[in-house]
Amino acid sequence: MTTEHNTKLNPLQLRQLIRNGGHRGNTSGLAPGYVQCNLAILPADYADEFLRFCQLNPKPCPIIAMADQPGAYLLPQVGTDVDIRTDVPAYEIFEHGQHTQRVHDLISVWRDDLVTFMLGCSFSFEEALLADGLEVRNISEKVNVPMYRTNIACQRAGRFGGNMVVSMRPMKAADAIRAIQICSRFPSVHGAPVHLGDPSQIGITDIHQPDFGDAVSLGADELPVFWACGVTPQLAIQHAKPPFCITHSPGCMLVTDLLNSRLSIL
Amino acid sequence: MTTEHNTKLNPLQLRQLIRNGGHRGNTSGLAPGYVQCNLAILPADYADEFLRFCQLNPKPCPIIAMADQPGAYLLPQVGTDVDIRTDVPAYEIFEHGQHTQRVHDLISVWRDDLVTFMLGCSFSFEEALLADGLEVRNISEKVNVPMYRTNIACQRAGRFGGNMVVSMRPMKAADAIRAIQICSRFPSVHGAPVHLGDPSQIGITDIHQPDFGDAVSLGADELPVFWACGVTPQLAIQHAKPPFCITHSPGCMLVTDLLNSRLSIL
Repeated sequence: MTTEHNTKLNPLQLRQLIRNGGHRGNTSGLAPGYVQCNLAILPADYADEFLRFCQLNPKPCPIIAMADQPGAYLLPQVGTDVDIRTDVPAYEIFEHGQHTQRVHDLISVWRDDLVTFMLGCSFSFEEALLADGLEVRNISEKVNVPMYRTNIACQRAGRFGGNMVVSMRPMKAADAIRAIQICSRFPSVHGAPVHLGDPSQIGITDIHQPDFGDAVSLGADELPVFWACGVTPQLAIQHAKPPFCITHSPGCMLVTDLLNSRLSIL
Repeated sequence: MTTEHNTKLNPLQLRQLIRNGGHRGNTSGLAPGYVQCNLAILPADYADEFLRFCQLNPKPCPIIAMADQPGAYLLPQVGTDVDIRTDVPAYEIFEHGQHTQRVHDLISVWRDDLVTFMLGCSFSFEEALLADGLEVRNISEKVNVPMYRTNIACQRAGRFGGNMVVSMRPMKAADAIRAIQICSRFPSVHGAPVHLGDPSQIGITDIHQPDFGDAVSLGADELPVFWACGVTPQLAIQHAKPPFCITHSPGCMLVTDLLNSRLSIL
């Protein structure tokens, strides 16, 4: 089945296809209109601290939902028949902060102490920007969004800390103002930008050399606009070095039954 | 009576004081919390075109209220016992686009064909910015806000046209983002900024040489943030050259009984 066919699937159909091994790649552009989530799965004795880290740093770490108890892998709060062990195309496993393997299901590695966090992702606000007629550069140039380490310190919570990572989309000033208005309505998917203009003010030395993702073109008449990024909690987890943890593989998200438009607070 | 005493007056008391000749200066900072309006008073055969000009250009020309018929000088829609002929500290009279006199009441010049427009003013959103803990540079430096002619063309309506005038307040990026959020809630007092960053993109050649008002300091770590300005309709009126028209004198506004907070759309 091609990706083109997959765009016709609703979230439940897409998850079933993923569960059955029929789609193992990127979920970008699939199930348009529905919320896709970043994933962090941690042992219970790290979960309370991570929850507090998210509460203290809601812009990079907006919680859409979390499992209601350790070990729970069925997550009806985000969709019909969601099994977090099988319904994401690819997962990354880390041990003591080191990446150890990439897997397509968690059946053999699941543990009764694992707590699942589902975090908001930029796909939701990018959809809102596109729907408003704005250009999203990484989409029009068909690359991953450029992401940068900053000098903006996150609020620490126990073993979780570190600096914020931001994503960048270039825009003309009037479009940047409109993007701020639109994204302010969506606090659970990173909300309004955290910075715009001079990258050096947030510790970025070369805008053309992102730390993650790909560079995009930046016009002389454009401002770089920076949003808090979901890579922030991933780095915080690597920093905390739990003996075991799982994240989604970049771009391979949990597709939920929640509508993007219902994330809007206004 | 000193200005310090006048800050204790409610809008009705302040208008009565103005009517009786007891206050002939600036209304900035008086009756805090209440909407102050820019004023445009035009002959009836210009009023329909001016109304259309405002409708087409709501950011520089946001109508708070207008008289319900030519000649009406009592304006209960904006406050108790408002008489537009006497309740503004100072007025400017123009004939055929030329300024002819400054007066403190309109009793001797009032005509049965005059239509009064009351337009939103930056005092309202500056109050909202200050209440949010943001600095408003022209207030902290105790000068008039710097204003600039731009190359942003207004939508033309009959004899009314011209380019937009903007006011500028310098802010750090994060404060600019917050200011955009706050001002987006107040479309009837110029709303969100129209530009930020590079002044040359909107035709401003020297940010340190405003066309109206006073220069303010601009830090290397700050962006100039530009709002549509109420001087725009005044220039449009001078451009249209009606045989007779009246505006408020700069800074000497109509103080209404409307609460600034009630202008918020959210």
